[in-house]
Amino acid sequence: MRKSIATVSLSGSLSEKLAAIAAAGFDGVEIFENDLLASPLAPEEVRMRAADLGLRIELYQPFRDFEAVPDDLLARNLRRAERKFALMQRLGADLLLVCSSVSPEALDDDALAAEQLHRLAELAGEFGIRIAYEALAWGRHVNTYEHAWRIVEQAGHPGLGTCLDSFHILSRGSDPKGIEAIPGDKIFFLQLADAPQVAMDVLQWSRHYRCFPGQGGFDVAAVVAHAVRAGYRGPLSLEVFNDVFRQADAGRTAVDALRSLIALEEAAGTAVLPEPVVPSGFAFAELAAADTEPLRGLLGALGFSRTGRHPGKPVELWQQGEARVLLNTTAGHLRDGASITALGLDAADPRAAVRRAEALLAPVVPRRRTFGEAPLDAVAAPDGTELFFCGTELPGWRGDFTPSAATAEPTGITAVDHVAIPQPWHHFDEASLFHRTVLGLRPDESLDLADPYGLYRSRAVANATGTVRIALNVAPGPEDAEARPQHIAFATDDLIAAARRIRERGGSFLRIPANYYDDLDARHELDPATLAELRELDLLYDRDEYGEFLHCYTPTVGRVFFELVQRTGDYRGYGAYNATVRLAAQHAGRQQPI
Amino acid sequence: MRKSIATVSLSGSLSEKLAAIAAAGFDGVEIFENDLLASPLAPEEVRMRAADLGLRIELYQPFRDFEAVPDDLLARNLRRAERKFALMQRLGADLLLVCSSVSPEALDDDALAAEQLHRLAELAGEFGIRIAYEALAWGRHVNTYEHAWRIVEQAGHPGLGTCLDSFHILSRGSDPKGIEAIPGDKIFFLQLADAPQVAMDVLQWSRHYRCFPGQGGFDVAAVVAHAVRAGYRGPLSLEVFNDVFRQADAGRTAVDALRSLIALEEAAGTAVLPEPVVPSGFAFAELAAADTEPLRGLLGALGFSRTGRHPGKPVELWQQGEARVLLNTTAGHLRDGASITALGLDAADPRAAVRRAEALLAPVVPRRRTFGEAPLDAVAAPDGTELFFCGTELPGWRGDFTPSAATAEPTGITAVDHVAIPQPWHHFDEASLFHRTVLGLRPDESLDLADPYGLYRSRAVANATGTVRIALNVAPGPEDAEARPQHIAFATDDLIAAARRIRERGGSFLRIPANYYDDLDARHELDPATLAELRELDLLYDRDEYGEFLHCYTPTVGRVFFELVQRTGDYRGYGAYNATVRLAAQHAGRQQPI
Repeated sequence: MRKSIATVSLSGSLSEKLAAIAAAGFDGVEIFENDLLASPLAPEEVRMRAADLGLRIELYQPFRDFEAVPDDLLARNLRRAERKFALMQRLGADLLLVCSSVSPEALDDDALAAEQLHRLAELAGEFGIRIAYEALAWGRHVNTYEHAWRIVEQAGHPGLGTCLDSFHILSRGSDPKGIEAIPGDKIFFLQLADAPQVAMDVLQWSRHYRCFPGQGGFDVAAVVAHAVRAGYRGPLSLEVFNDVFRQADAGRTAVDALRSLIALEEAAGTAVLPEPVVPSGFAFAELAAADTEPLRGLLGALGFSRTGRHPGKPVELWQQGEARVLLNTTAGHLRDGASITALGLDAADPRAAVRRAEALLAPVVPRRRTFGEAPLDAVAAPDGTELFFCGTELPGWRGDFTPSAATAEPTGITAVDHVAIPQPWHHFDEASLFHRTVLGLRPDESLDLADPYGLYRSRAVANATGTVRIALNVAPGPEDAEARPQHIAFATDDLIAAARRIRERGGSFLRIPANYYDDLDARHELDPATLAELRELDLLYDRDEYGEFLHCYTPTVGRVFFELVQRTGDYRGYGAYNATVRLAAQHAGRQQPI
Repeated sequence: MRKSIATVSLSGSLSEKLAAIAAAGFDGVEIFENDLLASPLAPEEVRMRAADLGLRIELYQPFRDFEAVPDDLLARNLRRAERKFALMQRLGADLLLVCSSVSPEALDDDALAAEQLHRLAELAGEFGIRIAYEALAWGRHVNTYEHAWRIVEQAGHPGLGTCLDSFHILSRGSDPKGIEAIPGDKIFFLQLADAPQVAMDVLQWSRHYRCFPGQGGFDVAAVVAHAVRAGYRGPLSLEVFNDVFRQADAGRTAVDALRSLIALEEAAGTAVLPEPVVPSGFAFAELAAADTEPLRGLLGALGFSRTGRHPGKPVELWQQGEARVLLNTTAGHLRDGASITALGLDAADPRAAVRRAEALLAPVVPRRRTFGEAPLDAVAAPDGTELFFCGTELPGWRGDFTPSAATAEPTGITAVDHVAIPQPWHHFDEASLFHRTVLGLRPDESLDLADPYGLYRSRAVANATGTVRIALNVAPGPEDAEARPQHIAFATDDLIAAARRIRERGGSFLRIPANYYDDLDARHELDPATLAELRELDLLYDRDEYGEFLHCYTPTVGRVFFELVQRTGDYRGYGAYNATVRLAAQHAGRQQPI
């Protein structure tokens, strides 16, 4: 199906929006009136600009407060409409969106509304224009799609149809099944938006919190499926009012938007994409730093050994159990300290994984940029982390490294449990959609974590077995996302033993306040010996209905630190309850004299 | 009354919070449990720290999900409580807040709740501790203050009272009059918070959007007045969960918080402050720049003359009608370009105005910092602008300037209509409260203005006659508030004539797109001659039910531009409808090659 987006969904001037929409690969565009009014381009110039960019102008919108009014007001409204029809002719737009009236002057009279919309369609016809009538969720008398359709049907004019909007339908809890009762050729337009499931005033919800399909809690795919079953053959068009997107880079938002429509078509069954190749584990995590000496020290203390060295590049492989970390000093442009630059993901079919990613507009990283000799397929996540799809046959990428024997005594670390990566503030929803659709990971609920200097939002994505888990975090504001700490959590089956061994060899952990353990005692009634051990070793504890969780943290190097975790039973979380204490301790550590 | 605040209301570590609370001048503090848990200070150390700072620990909170449970759970809950009582003894806190249960295990049984709370109070008594039971607005069975009080009454224990919270009472629409039916000595604690009037899930509303009294839409003063009438003699304590305050500087937020309590006491009639001295007009607006030549050119083109020069300082007075602008080049530290640094406000009694401001914790600017010889009284607004209270007798401050004759032909500018000043992102509510309480100005509704790169929030404050109007604007995010444009709007009785005269002398205005005028025609049916003049002169038009508004904008110098406005009838706004077009035109202008 053709793919379109309303200009109001993006930031910038009308010229910038059109350029971003075309560059992302949309077929068409809805021109939002305010964008045109604020533009120095004449309507004819906008028409030419769109044509040059290969964009069809699918719709002009909105026309408000037209129908079911007294005669004198009708005359004024028809005059107003006539001016807009003239403008649309100059613009080359042949479909006008008319929203159900919110005016106190509108009467609750369907017959009158139908008669006046008939007159409007008649007038529009003289300009070669058609009318799509839509129920706003907060319309004064008409606020459901069924009601808008009844009026359109009653009006009985070939140039008058209805416009469906998934937000207006789903925010009111209307059943979208009824869409199939509308003849497909009377559905003139289909607007799509998702939104988080929150209880709030519907007007505010609509104006500030809409998001792209798949980023909220609505079943937008069902609306599409019903409309297609009804016979709708027009474009799928995104209309999203969102405070964050208004500030974000238009080019990037447009790509995010188009990805959401591509995934939506798959979900609605109107298009087929290459199947997702869900990663089955972490092959490695790569850390880059100008000086990797502090990281070597930290990994050594944790019981990792350098088990491989690249013959031609300054890249080392450090390993313990199935946990593998690459240390890379090629990235000389990096500021001091370390950061996570890439994740290796075990994928049964790397090429298929890339095909899926490409179909969903993920930027493919040129193969020559892989670190080894064996070509690796990689795409870039929205946060810039490179995701390498690593075949599961041995030696694979590991064959590029000159092996050396493990030298350190292991401490019981078995694998990477999860990786936590801060996300750019303006692109948190994009990141969640990306990981879900491109990698086939399942998002958890979004959580608030109280840092002493603001709330973090955190959302984990994971595969079904929990062998790949990525925590996407976003800081309270748009500033300095690049300075936010990242971390890798290693799994162990016996954290108490591991912590003891690490301490014996000189490793240390983040100090946890004594008050935390007093509260743990009050809340969980742990046996005194266990509590004493947790207290002694600075271990944190959590439990849910499925199991228990023990964890602790290393000091931070650059922007990177490590966590050690032990999951017992089927504990599903990440110790979020303890985040406040951990974040405060990390801040306190930073404030200490070095 | 004693004034207190919960540590959760501020950012930072517990130490930082206590220091900020004491520095602002609070008498006491509620210790929020998570702040203690995350602190490396032992409870005894917190106790000493608070004592050293002169802060009384009024309350420890919260204790959750205690009452109306089966026996086995009761035993566990009593054990949990006993641990907390021991901790409170170490902390030196003798009042514990118990919130009504939200647990699915709680039974809907008031008698059981009363009996178990009685047992809790009995146990607490052994530690010298009392219990304040509070209804959460989302409590499972107990969610109104009347219900919580009935249970407390039924329990009949001297160590058990109720805690009232204005948020929980007012967010549910409960009538606070009923507070007077509670014996004052059974109201153990009074927590205060305001919130904006929005329809949303009450838990989310409470956790993220509370604000200080006077910053939201609740009648918090009524709650205080009823509690005092009931005989309550404890502290007034702020408990505010707010995403923005969590990020803001704690010291500054604490002052804002205490100011809100002082103003609240005045509103509730429990304290008397010096009367506000509402300014009757703008005496001047001061602009500072390293190089004032571009501003001189702009003011000259607008028909201003240099009518005075300071004999000893690089300050000039420019004037037309009653509009006066000071140009100051002393501030050599300023970046290039100009900014508004001070406003002169006509005040009948400047000393009284300062007394009021001091009572409300406004920073008084040292008199030696005034620009002239005649000492001027000034305070600093939250955005840093200095507000000078200028006596209305002549010559006053104007006597400091060596007068010179007006040289420019006036263009019909009569006065300053309003001044628009961007506010720091974290302190928008503070600014509104400051202008209302310190200056006695009335806030308008808050508006959203769509800039091409994000939404602005704007709220005007004005005196009753509209002769002093200040528009407080806040940009979409915390970044670079200092770079945001400021402006001064000058009033004229005939904007069309003024604009023509200014153009004749080489002045120019912001170019408004032709599309804007086509839409104006469609919407307002202006007569064709007027519309042609607006279009020719780049004037914007608005109207409301009270009158009409014409306005236009000069180019921007540094971060400052000027607006010319003509109000007809009793038009109340600021042309907000046109803001999108104006902001887009300003961005477009900036992107043009110079």
